[in-house]
Amino acid sequence: MNFLEERIVSDGAVSLGNVLKVDSFLNHQIDVSLLLQVGKVFYDHFKGKNITRVITVESSGIAVACFTAQLFQVPVVYAVKEMSKNLDGLLYKSHVYSSGGDRNYDISLSRRYLDVSDTVLIVDDFLASGVAVRGLLDICSQAGAKVAGIGVAIEKGFQGGGDALRHDGYDVKSVAIVDSMSSDGTIVFREQPDEA
Amino acid sequence: MNFLEERIVSDGAVSLGNVLKVDSFLNHQIDVSLLLQVGKVFYDHFKGKNITRVITVESSGIAVACFTAQLFQVPVVYAVKEMSKNLDGLLYKSHVYSSGGDRNYDISLSRRYLDVSDTVLIVDDFLASGVAVRGLLDICSQAGAKVAGIGVAIEKGFQGGGDALRHDGYDVKSVAIVDSMSSDGTIVFREQPDEA
Repeated sequence: MNFLEERIVSDGAVSLGNVLKVDSFLNHQIDVSLLLQVGKVFYDHFKGKNITRVITVESSGIAVACFTAQLFQVPVVYAVKEMSKNLDGLLYKSHVYSSGGDRNYDISLSRRYLDVSDTVLIVDDFLASGVAVRGLLDICSQAGAKVAGIGVAIEKGFQGGGDALRHDGYDVKSVAIVDSMSSDGTIVFREQPDEA
Repeated sequence: MNFLEERIVSDGAVSLGNVLKVDSFLNHQIDVSLLLQVGKVFYDHFKGKNITRVITVESSGIAVACFTAQLFQVPVVYAVKEMSKNLDGLLYKSHVYSSGGDRNYDISLSRRYLDVSDTVLIVDDFLASGVAVRGLLDICSQAGAKVAGIGVAIEKGFQGGGDALRHDGYDVKSVAIVDSMSSDGTIVFREQPDEA
């Protein structure tokens, strides 16, 4: 097991509704050194791709994006889920059908911070059905930006979103892929090649 | 002028409704190296205080919190504005009356990640009327956690929230304090002692 798989086993929990709770280190409390390691995995995988911006969706993607962008020495841009006073002017917009099925939302990103000259790394804390990533891909397409790939901390492989993106030709790098999990705490990770 | 004041003058804009737009480097697109400098200011100011956690509110506080916590080598915990599947169990809650007057919201933070053993640094990208910080202070009080101080990238001094907190005895360190601004682009910063 790699460092993130080990952490999921030691500190994560499976709760009702196929929720993998990792709020002690990933998306409520943030273990800064762990996220730097996640960023390092993305950096090692995508470093030859001339990345110009790291993009994500608020809120839980922001920390992963920051520690990744720090290594690439490029800006983060995060799409917002609702209109803010901080954003005006021309926006790229996309509609996201929430993976939990419980909520739909629109995401927006300013046209000032993404254009045809960009090569983008999309990152997020989780990838399940992949709808948030699809929304960001839609925005990159509107901008004419090139997508170098997608970096995800934890992919829920059994929900199929990551493999569908790979089938569509995207380079998806997930630090941990959960292929199955059950409420008794059993978590099965997909074997992945060691790139180190 | 310090590095952040210079950046506000060169890349910020004053728009209607007393909004200081800094979305090109602080709260939509994020200039990673700038935020590391902001974190360094907080680190230099609070480093003797035995900080155990850096706390903030989603979303725009998360990046500042991450780069600050990286220097202190402690976890970030961010309060969430609406209930998420990622959070359950016992929560601290507080009500925030939005400074824009346009929205009220509740913030929540898990009781697992803050308690009487903690010494907290509260950080945020902006401080205006101070209601978000007051909500976090309320949560720290519920937890019995000690508050070492408050670190803010940009304080809108003319809205009074920062000075009210100082009057109440809190150590508020703002990298830039805007004492007045107008829609013609004039921005007046408060003179602050150079701690470097």
